[in-house]
Order: sequence, then C-alpha cells, then structure tokens
Amino acid sequence: MSNWESNVRKVVPYTPGEQPKDSGIIKLNTNENPYPPSSRVKTVIESFDNAKMRLYPDTNSTVLVDALAKRYNVKPSQVFVGVGSDDVISMAFMTFFNSDKTVLFPDVTYSFYDVWADVYRIPYAVRPLDNDFRINPDDYICENGGIIFPNPNAPTGVFESLDMIEKIIKANPDSVVIIDEAYIDFGGESCIPLVDKYENLLVVQTFSKSRSMAGMRIGFAVGNEKLIKFMNDVKFSINSYTMNPLSQICGAEAVYDEEYFKETTGIIIETREYSKKRLSELGFSFPDSMSNFIFASHNSIDAGFIFEELKKRKIFVRYWNKPRINNHLRITIGTREEMEKLFSALEEILQMKG
Amino acid sequence: MSNWESNVRKVVPYTPGEQPKDSGIIKLNTNENPYPPSSRVKTVIESFDNAKMRLYPDTNSTVLVDALAKRYNVKPSQVFVGVGSDDVISMAFMTFFNSDKTVLFPDVTYSFYDVWADVYRIPYAVRPLDNDFRINPDDYICENGGIIFPNPNAPTGVFESLDMIEKIIKANPDSVVIIDEAYIDFGGESCIPLVDKYENLLVVQTFSKSRSMAGMRIGFAVGNEKLIKFMNDVKFSINSYTMNPLSQICGAEAVYDEEYFKETTGIIIETREYSKKRLSELGFSFPDSMSNFIFASHNSIDAGFIFEELKKRKIFVRYWNKPRINNHLRITIGTREEMEKLFSALEEILQMKG
Repeated sequence: MSNWESNVRKVVPYTPGEQPKDSGIIKLNTNENPYPPSSRVKTVIESFDNAKMRLYPDTNSTVLVDALAKRYNVKPSQVFVGVGSDDVISMAFMTFFNSDKTVLFPDVTYSFYDVWADVYRIPYAVRPLDNDFRINPDDYICENGGIIFPNPNAPTGVFESLDMIEKIIKANPDSVVIIDEAYIDFGGESCIPLVDKYENLLVVQTFSKSRSMAGMRIGFAVGNEKLIKFMNDVKFSINSYTMNPLSQICGAEAVYDEEYFKETTGIIIETREYSKKRLSELGFSFPDSMSNFIFASHNSIDAGFIFEELKKRKIFVRYWNKPRINNHLRITIGTREEMEKLFSALEEILQMKG
Repeated sequence: MSNWESNVRKVVPYTPGEQPKDSGIIKLNTNENPYPPSSRVKTVIESFDNAKMRLYPDTNSTVLVDALAKRYNVKPSQVFVGVGSDDVISMAFMTFFNSDKTVLFPDVTYSFYDVWADVYRIPYAVRPLDNDFRINPDDYICENGGIIFPNPNAPTGVFESLDMIEKIIKANPDSVVIIDEAYIDFGGESCIPLVDKYENLLVVQTFSKSRSMAGMRIGFAVGNEKLIKFMNDVKFSINSYTMNPLSQICGAEAVYDEEYFKETTGIIIETREYSKKRLSELGFSFPDSMSNFIFASHNSIDAGFIFEELKKRKIFVRYWNKPRINNHLRITIGTREEMEKLFSALEEILQMKG
C-alpha cells in the first residue's frame, strides 16, 4: 500500500435499492411514486431559458424556499433545502451531531443513519424497536448527542403519534431531535407545527415520494431560525450552489399544485389499503402502514425465496438479509394494475410451496 | 445559550460573489461564461420525459461519466462526477486529507480551500506565492497531509507549467495532490495525461466556466481507479443520488459538442488578449492570465474605489479586501461588447481622479 492510502477516510457506503434498466419491470423496490410529477413541472421545464444556465443559480433557492414556507406556514428563514432529503439529513448530522456523546436511533430504521454516523465519525447506539416494531419513548430519555428516526418509520411503515414524539423532544432540550418525515404525506400527521414550540426539533421531508420527484433530488428541513442558520452555515462551507435553477422552479411548481398532490397521494393511500386486504388474504402479516409501502412477512414461506421468485417474474421489491427483518419484504405501493400483477405472482409463488 | 447549541459545528462559511437580480447589469464578477450552453443542451431538456422524474436517477451517472471518459481518454472508472467542482473538491478534502498532517495550498488562491479545511477540521498551512504570484515548487517539498492548488491559479490567472507541477507530484508519493483545473480550457495544458503515471494525482474540472453551465452544477475529477473508488465510497456514504437525470444528459451533450466548446473558448481567449491590451493602455498591470479573467491593479487608482465606481455604473467585478490582493480587481472576460462598456466606464473613472 502506498502511504497516501493510509490517509484516506475509509468507509462502507450505503447500498441503494436496485435501479434496473430493463423495460417491462414492475418496480416496487425503492418507494418511488407510480405517478408522474405535476404537469406544472413539465411546463416550466419546457419554457426554461437555456441561456440562463450559464449563470450560477440563486444560492438561497428563494423561489423554492418561499413556496415551501407558504405551504407549511413558516418563515422562509425556517426552511433549508438540499439535494434530496439524504443531502439534508447528512448536513444535519454534520451540523448538529457534533459532540462526543452518543447519537440514538432505532435498530430497525433507515439504513443510511449508521452510514452517516460512520463517515462523520459520530458515536451512535441503536435502541431496539419492540416486537410490534414500535418505538419506546423511554429509550430516548437519557443522555445523548442527538436523536433521529423516521415517522412513519422505514422500512416498517409504522406511524408514531405526535404525543409520543413530543415527549421525546421535550425530554431532550440539550439535543437536536430530527424527525425524518419522508413518508408523512400518506396519512400521517407532521411534526412541523411543533417547530415553533421546540427549538431543538428539526423536521425533514422529501420530494422523492409524495411529490413524484425522486429524480430531481429535492429535500427540505423545517425548524426554528437558529437551527436553519447553523445548517446553512455548514452548507455554505461545503458547496454554495447545490440546487440548480431547474430543481428550484420545478420544486416550487410541484408545491403549488396542491390539488394534484392530494389526488395522487389519495390514490396511493387507497391502493395501499386495498393491498393490505389482499396481502392478508394471501397469508401475509405486517405492521399497519401509514406510508407508501408495506413491510410484509408470510406466515409460512420464506421472504428471501419470495423475493427471488418475484425477481424472476420481473417484479422488484426490497429485501434485507439482516437480523430481525430477514423474513420481511418491503413492497412499494404502485398503481392498482401493478399491485394486481404482484398479487397474481404471489399466488403463483405461494402455490409452488403449497 | 441552550445546551444543544454547544454541540453545533460552528463555521465561517464561504462568501460567493454577488448574484444581482437586476437586469441591465454587466456581470463580470463570478467568472461565468458570457455565451449560452451548447444548443444540444436545450434540445435534450426540451425532449426530456417528465414522467421519468418520478424515478431515482442512475447513481453512477453513466451517461455523463462515459462522455467524460471518452473526451479525456481515460476509463469510466477513472472519473468522478459531482454537483459542481465545489462538491467534487469538498468530497476530495474529506476523502484524502484525513491525516493529522498539514495540508498545503498557496496564500493567494481559491478562497474556499481554507473553508473546507475548517469545516472538516483539517490542519492546513499556506505557502506564499512570490511577488509575481508564482508558486515556488520547493515550498511543497516537505512533509504534508495533502496539496491543492488551482492551475491556472485563481484569482491570479497564472498558469504553471506541467514540468513544475510534475516535480511537486513526484516529490509527494505519500500525499494526494489535487490540481484544480477550473480554468484550464482557456489556453492552459491539463494534467489529466499524468494521472496514469502518478496514482497520487487528482485533477478536478468544472462545467461552470468553459462549458457555460454554472447553473447546472456539474464538476468532475479524473484520477487513477483507486482514488476514484475511495471518493465514490465517501460520496455513497453521504448521498447516493446527487446528479439528477437532466444534469446527467445535459452534461453529456455539452461534452459531445466539441465544436461549440472550441468556438466559445476560442472567442473568450481572443477577447481576453484584446482586454489585456486595453487594460495596459489604461494603466493597469496584471500577471499574464491563461484563464477567463484578468487580475488587474491600477498604477495610481485604488482598486476598492474603482470597484465601487463600477458598481454604481452597474458593472460588477470581484474585489477582496484581503492582505496582498486588496489593490486588485478580478475581471471576468465577458463578450467583446461588455468589455468595451467596461473600458469606457474605466476611462471615465480614471478621469475622475486624473
């Protein structure tokens, strides 16, 4: 090994879900929205003045920040935007989880949290969910260097009440508590109204799920002005210009099309409830989901087997060969038609073992 | 102060050049290209299938990486892409400047280097340029934790020969040496052909200057496969999806339009050479520039005064009130027409003090 290699920050990176390039695949593996973005997004892209691209974008992403501030009834100075919620959360880890104390999150949760902790050399500990995949708030009432969990949680889909979350926030005035609401728009209740009550609360959301814009890479955080200012200071110490003008205007247009947002999230919720019924009939059980996916385990057939068999049939779902969750499949809610194809395939696979 | 604040990573962020929103401004302050991007960029944006935006982008940015690999005659595994060269360099600081040893860069240079060092808690030291703003290679032949400088240097525009740079790379097998070639396409000679000879060399370039795409946020690095793999590991530990599909395809199209690239960089070089002549006639002196800007100082009138007077006339150039450079203006090369307006304004301002 040459000596320069000894100075390299070595890490084990996050593994994102597969993005197969074949056509004809039913893609229920990365919680994307089955519907296209608002038609207003298409319109602004088509009318974008190419010549503007020679200029640096607005560093403050004013058009997007303003749209979000209006939509969520906060001040623009309470909104931070980034290149997907991964960028936002990563920046929050770096900004707020900066003590020698241990950061806490659930054992079964978004599998990027421990990766961020590792890359930024942040000490962390996991708190086991109970057998129903629920968070016990008392696990988070102790000395710590910060707290983060998704609500609804991923990959379980379990939504925790604002009362329970408020208990955790209130008990931790010396830590920043990050609630990662990537899946909040599918029936959950957002913590955003609590940000003016608790200055240690940061709420993160994304355009990748409910707003059908995983491709465009837009995420945001809402918190009190002090938190947002600290995050922006770190962001402006890394890259002044992260949001290109197309992301900014497309994001704003998507936010302003509230009607389409309600329509598409409504259909996904409907399809999810129908899918719960069908999966139960097929012998699956799952924690009740308030997200755009269902975390299901079959009462007799191994999840790894079903995963592989579905793949052979060009249906991609997500499977982790990890302790506690290696007999579950995380199934994204697609269109009704895609879900019917999934159920037919599952019937076929279950019969193989019947 | 609440206790959570004591855990915050506190930093002094980088200050980017002003992006005034008024129309009618002659903007020669952030080294943008006065010409629009290739028309091929416009075409792919217009034909982009909006529905695709619901899906996560290709994490590997294959279409863009392949275009760059072909253009620079390296393997795709030797190319790293990011959200502007700031993202790329920031990632390189985090990946490679990870020892307790001191990282070295010039005293007069891109003013983001010390900001990155601070945010990532990297020890650093500056090496003074000589009185002609040249780098003395012997300053970099000593124990260090990494080396970075732009070539041509910013904000001076001075280009250093590949022989000199090779001497530094060769003398530092235990450190990664980053050559920041943001301005290389305006007459300089790139170090990219050296990457197969020295595994400790990383060359960074950007689409923001010579490719007229500051808005789109695309930067890249070329190095040996090991370096690029280490960078990607860190990148995939922070954000798996940074490049949206529009950035990827627009970037690739810009690279494939070599003819337009040569035409526009050629005109800028021509305008720069003409501007050197005109500035000399007006009593300015400057190190010989191989970039798309000129770093000029007047023989009798104070730079701060000229800066303010130009601003009053809606002409923005860049001025830093910092030791060694507080009597210089960095003037971006605009169109010939914009430069004529600048020269007229300068004549007027110089007469005020005459």
